[in-house]
Amino acid sequence: MQSFSIGVDLGGTNLRVAAVTPEGERLDHISLPTRLTAGPHAVLDDMAQAIRQIIDKQPGKLLGIGVGSPGPLELPLGVLHRPPNLTGFDGLNLRTELERRLDRPVHVGHDAALAAYGEFHLGAGHTHAVDSLLMLTLGTGVGCGIVLEGRIWQGMQGSAGESGHGPIIPDGIPCPCGARGCLEMYASATSIVRRAHELGLAPATPEPSADSAQPLTASAIAQLATNGDERALKIFDEVGYALGLSLAHLVNALDLPLYVIGGGAAAAWPLFAPRMFSTLREGSYVYRMSMPRDPNIFEPGITHIAPAKLSDAGILGAALLPLPARSPAPA
Amino acid sequence: MQSFSIGVDLGGTNLRVAAVTPEGERLDHISLPTRLTAGPHAVLDDMAQAIRQIIDKQPGKLLGIGVGSPGPLELPLGVLHRPPNLTGFDGLNLRTELERRLDRPVHVGHDAALAAYGEFHLGAGHTHAVDSLLMLTLGTGVGCGIVLEGRIWQGMQGSAGESGHGPIIPDGIPCPCGARGCLEMYASATSIVRRAHELGLAPATPEPSADSAQPLTASAIAQLATNGDERALKIFDEVGYALGLSLAHLVNALDLPLYVIGGGAAAAWPLFAPRMFSTLREGSYVYRMSMPRDPNIFEPGITHIAPAKLSDAGILGAALLPLPARSPAPA
Repeated sequence: MQSFSIGVDLGGTNLRVAAVTPEGERLDHISLPTRLTAGPHAVLDDMAQAIRQIIDKQPGKLLGIGVGSPGPLELPLGVLHRPPNLTGFDGLNLRTELERRLDRPVHVGHDAALAAYGEFHLGAGHTHAVDSLLMLTLGTGVGCGIVLEGRIWQGMQGSAGESGHGPIIPDGIPCPCGARGCLEMYASATSIVRRAHELGLAPATPEPSADSAQPLTASAIAQLATNGDERALKIFDEVGYALGLSLAHLVNALDLPLYVIGGGAAAAWPLFAPRMFSTLREGSYVYRMSMPRDPNIFEPGITHIAPAKLSDAGILGAALLPLPARSPAPA
Repeated sequence: MQSFSIGVDLGGTNLRVAAVTPEGERLDHISLPTRLTAGPHAVLDDMAQAIRQIIDKQPGKLLGIGVGSPGPLELPLGVLHRPPNLTGFDGLNLRTELERRLDRPVHVGHDAALAAYGEFHLGAGHTHAVDSLLMLTLGTGVGCGIVLEGRIWQGMQGSAGESGHGPIIPDGIPCPCGARGCLEMYASATSIVRRAHELGLAPATPEPSADSAQPLTASAIAQLATNGDERALKIFDEVGYALGLSLAHLVNALDLPLYVIGGGAAAAWPLFAPRMFSTLREGSYVYRMSMPRDPNIFEPGITHIAPAKLSDAGILGAALLPLPARSPAPA
């Protein structure tokens, strides 16, 4: 009988619960829509029910429960503060509300930090056997998680890793966070779509028809770029520039062995990586001192920038959160 | 008899050695010119001789020896890599060369990291009783040191805290490091003087005379600004803007309780702080969520930006380096 822990990913659209072994094997999972319109307590009831349902089916020992949530999330308390992607959740104590429903201890973390933690133990950090990494997740926004010597660096109030809101372009595009020129305004899937509209790009429709007016997505734009569309190529070049500037700040500040780029938009790696690497080389002498001769060969003492290995690092990281901290398993 | 450790500050101009108690009291010190033209081995001989001279005079127990050096310095090895302020030292292993001369173990660290460590234990970190801080030192360049949970964060190869070379202004002023728009090009004493020349500022000379052609210094420019000179005021406003942008990146990434601004140019705090704070408020929602209602009142859970307390944090931090890590003494 395999012992297991529960990982939960509370998203603005979907609520996902999985039973995961300490080695990262998924034993069972449930996915539900997040019923935001029914209010936070209905969502918490759904979550608790799904967790119990999965626990009851597992014969092995439950090792703990970890929940990843969008922020701002005050840690270690577990209180949400006006989360833009969880309308109605302001002031909710996610941890204690869930502990009350389950009558068990619950660990809570930032979704982006847990994605980094998942990649650390089971993905790119595992492959490269590093003790620290930073991960940028390119999705609706740009999340950032930091793992230092095997532990999530959450900061004083749980707000570490808000580098998606680092002002890479002073006086740049206004961001809903109140600042201008945040990384998120150039490198998120949302910003890729916004830029495509600005440049007048339409989705590739071989046979235009009435129902071809599908929404333009970041992956459709990536497809256009791959087919050689110059405006689409320009968009991903801009993504690479923004990531390169942000990484220059982060590499210079932290000097970690590994920086991982994940999230849906990271699938466009071949489109943005060239400009990302050239901008990083120009902008960071720390990177130039330690960059790999061949980006495909991993050597200790070298600064690596690599795409994420896992498609679902967040829920795996959530499941690992309640387990004792450990070094990543050797590759 | 007081036990003591030795702190050394190896600067491009002066070489300073002090005997310091674990509580930060200075028992003795020696200051010598750094004889760069005589070569690194002559400088190391001078250093070893000064250290022995101080040790021999102390009746108490020697607890260890710590040396702060400009970078790039590869850690934990202790090897210098083309340090711009220590001509001729490229490839020198500072640690083993000194250990060989003294026949004792030597701890080596970055000057900016040791300044942060000194402030952490004996300065602003002590006053505020925080467990982590970041310090920017405004001098010839802009140094940066990071202390996380009581320990210096030196990064994979000792290059953490190179935020003086964070590219805050993309396509900004070219920096000798090879990047453009580095913080150092806007907020160092050197950049303050450069800007004054660009703006045609002359030093304040109440009675112009033949020998009044003294070099324009950052502190003379600060004096002009304090007297209301508009160009000088503009320079420090630009310093504040640059520091605010850099802090926005650092606060968003790390979420620490305290960021300290030190170094000679930090004496101009009243001149640059207004723009620094307004830029940081605009650029970092993490700061806005946690900023103090009154910057002069320290409260736990609040993000503080404060001037350094010590005039000589670097040499004190070097002396503390060989001692066991500890929490800052309660204020």
